[in-house]
Amino acid sequence: MTTVNERLEWRYATKKFDAGKKVPADKLDRIIEAVRLAPTTSGLQPFELIVVSNPEIRAKIRAVSWNQAQITDCSHLLVFAAWDDITPERVHMMFDLTNEIRGFKNEGWENYRLQLLERVAGQGRETNYQVAARQAYIGLGTAIVAAAFEGVDATPMEGFDPAAVDNILDLPARHLRSVVIMPLGYRAAEGDWLVNLKKVRRSRENFVTELK
Amino acid sequence: MTTVNERLEWRYATKKFDAGKKVPADKLDRIIEAVRLAPTTSGLQPFELIVVSNPEIRAKIRAVSWNQAQITDCSHLLVFAAWDDITPERVHMMFDLTNEIRGFKNEGWENYRLQLLERVAGQGRETNYQVAARQAYIGLGTAIVAAAFEGVDATPMEGFDPAAVDNILDLPARHLRSVVIMPLGYRAAEGDWLVNLKKVRRSRENFVTELK
Repeated sequence: MTTVNERLEWRYATKKFDAGKKVPADKLDRIIEAVRLAPTTSGLQPFELIVVSNPEIRAKIRAVSWNQAQITDCSHLLVFAAWDDITPERVHMMFDLTNEIRGFKNEGWENYRLQLLERVAGQGRETNYQVAARQAYIGLGTAIVAAAFEGVDATPMEGFDPAAVDNILDLPARHLRSVVIMPLGYRAAEGDWLVNLKKVRRSRENFVTELK
Repeated sequence: MTTVNERLEWRYATKKFDAGKKVPADKLDRIIEAVRLAPTTSGLQPFELIVVSNPEIRAKIRAVSWNQAQITDCSHLLVFAAWDDITPERVHMMFDLTNEIRGFKNEGWENYRLQLLERVAGQGRETNYQVAARQAYIGLGTAIVAAAFEGVDATPMEGFDPAAVDNILDLPARHLRSVVIMPLGYRAAEGDWLVNLKKVRRSRENFVTELK
């Protein structure tokens, strides 16, 4: 059986993609679906996923991302874009959707809606954005595993100018902010300095504490 | 074949755990290993994992977590604790470990070490903590998928008082801060109000934008 850990051992932060090799639609679809299915705080899904294959847009993004070649050489570029705020409208949208999908209203759930509205109003825009950005990283984590299961290489990247990427993708108009990007594609192993180097992780003793 | 998405469909935020049912050591081990293998920014792994089975400690954590029963009813409680700062010592620790594991020093890598040291010094403690906290959520995302592959129920939770949990676990002394917790165990389906309700996610059209 293919295991999660075997797949995590296989993957690495691909430095050189084969620009001629595209991720098939069914594989891309399943990776996107994993992100959509990822759980988030209070079920809000406070982020969106932008899937960029357009070469001109990717060239612009590369120019504000330390010129990293993976952005243009990959097959598809995922941009995880968090809500810039958790507004009442957005909270209502998700709570109303829940009632609609489940087909009933519930007093406990409605009380929780009110609590949450109070909390996000109290903590303010910047904290709400930070909360949303963290949820996007849950989506990133599931995308990393999902891509590895599809045999698709992926490179999570924070090395870009978020405000510049936001402008390229017109995210401010949608009240979104880019938080992390991930090229998807296939490794060009012969040109990749990292592919044959050992994966580096701290030992279990230096990473895990068990309190029994 | 078991797929990531089939497993993500299976899982849900378990509200009632079977307090008598423990996660076997080999399954727990593989879930922890998935977190350890998760990629992080610059390979820093700027968080640690605390695995709490001790009942007294869990009772204390429950008391500062809105009295949520999953914390004491579950088999093991995972606490994701981020570095409270990305200090030069911590950067050197990971870069030195990389050189040790790979068996060589590399000029490009050493230059990157210096760049990173400058960046984390410039952005300051609170931003460094926020960066670290986001990486913990990549670990959370991989743990969610890994647990689902093991048939282990899991409930990601932000509803706790982080400063109080930090004190219970003596995290300030280790320069760590709790960011998210996740009970692991087995659902007690008969007492769980959520188990039979439909999963709620936004439609693909409302979640994904493709720029072709």
